[in-house]
Amino acid sequence: MNTYAKTKLNKVRKSDRASYDKETVHAILDEALLAHVGFTDNDWPMVIPMIYGRIGETLYLHGAKAARIAKTLGKGVPVCIEVTLVDALVLARSAFHSSMNYRSVVIHGMARQVTDADEMTQALAQITDHLAPGRWDEARPMNDKELKSTGVFAVPIEHAVAKARTGGPIDDDEDYALPVWSGVIPVRHAFGAPQDDGRLLDGVEVPASVVETLKRHA
Amino acid sequence: MNTYAKTKLNKVRKSDRASYDKETVHAILDEALLAHVGFTDNDWPMVIPMIYGRIGETLYLHGAKAARIAKTLGKGVPVCIEVTLVDALVLARSAFHSSMNYRSVVIHGMARQVTDADEMTQALAQITDHLAPGRWDEARPMNDKELKSTGVFAVPIEHAVAKARTGGPIDDDEDYALPVWSGVIPVRHAFGAPQDDGRLLDGVEVPASVVETLKRHA
Repeated sequence: MNTYAKTKLNKVRKSDRASYDKETVHAILDEALLAHVGFTDNDWPMVIPMIYGRIGETLYLHGAKAARIAKTLGKGVPVCIEVTLVDALVLARSAFHSSMNYRSVVIHGMARQVTDADEMTQALAQITDHLAPGRWDEARPMNDKELKSTGVFAVPIEHAVAKARTGGPIDDDEDYALPVWSGVIPVRHAFGAPQDDGRLLDGVEVPASVVETLKRHA
Repeated sequence: MNTYAKTKLNKVRKSDRASYDKETVHAILDEALLAHVGFTDNDWPMVIPMIYGRIGETLYLHGAKAARIAKTLGKGVPVCIEVTLVDALVLARSAFHSSMNYRSVVIHGMARQVTDADEMTQALAQITDHLAPGRWDEARPMNDKELKSTGVFAVPIEHAVAKARTGGPIDDDEDYALPVWSGVIPVRHAFGAPQDDGRLLDGVEVPASVVETLKRHA
């Protein structure tokens, strides 16, 4: 199946903006930098920004074991993961039709603590490489103490939907007679020149992971 | 008081990255484009990206009355609003110390449906002007039909905390001997040149709201 099943959790009211296509969902997940992870803690909703990595139909999250989110996700609770890319501000002739161009994904699933050592390593590598492809192999590997203090969580992409708005403003017919500017302002994540920390050993150059990161977001 | 009270909801474990200062919280809210709004719906956490506006110690959200979030927020439920600006990828010599520079805010409060006509108009103006300052006065005002189909919600900033990471990577002492590149890649929202929709009346020029938006995010 190339699409996610429509369920109570991922069904979108305005279906012209929704897609259940797996490739569409994956592409947004792979391009974005941050996930906004929602869960319930003592009857209060919590939303935390987290980095993540995707392997197939599983999203991986990580956090210090001492952190609230790690303690909660470790219990196997339902979570919601939202990821959004802002593409443009859309200024219509009316305030009402003004909008934003974006691509977003909302996923629901049950979190699972990763305990298998191999899966944990693969997940941490993917989370690292998600932001800077190839970085895991360049950096000093994680040692036992670091692994022991880190909680890794898997969220199967059980219920998922992508939403997107594209294109210019769409005004009411009669509003095109108004002397009001209308159009879009494009927005994107711009990556600047890498700045080393001033403590590099002689001969160490900008690595492939940084070059690849800049190329991806050029 | 210039700071938010520390409560169970906003107390941060790693206090060196946390700030309860109101000005710090406001500045992040005023710079960011999107809020990630969490609430609970039939025992599942939900996180939805939304635009917003701040007036003093209140955040305003809006949505089509027919949408799930509007129906839920209208009941006066607890919500969590998270806003995050990504400032840089931080590549340390070890995967473990690699990180991200960011500024985030997490707010908890009880949503309240706005019913007063004046408050509703002020809130919608602020939501519009948050993305493009001054746009509300340039655009065609909302008519009665549009106002009737729109739900506006106020969330008092009752519990709030800002978190931020700044600066370069911090490696373990022994890792500075490794021949591994270490540093940061700056990230920011870049706004491109405005593109009109091709249907402007003669003589309509790029308005002050667009100029001001580009200046803010230059």
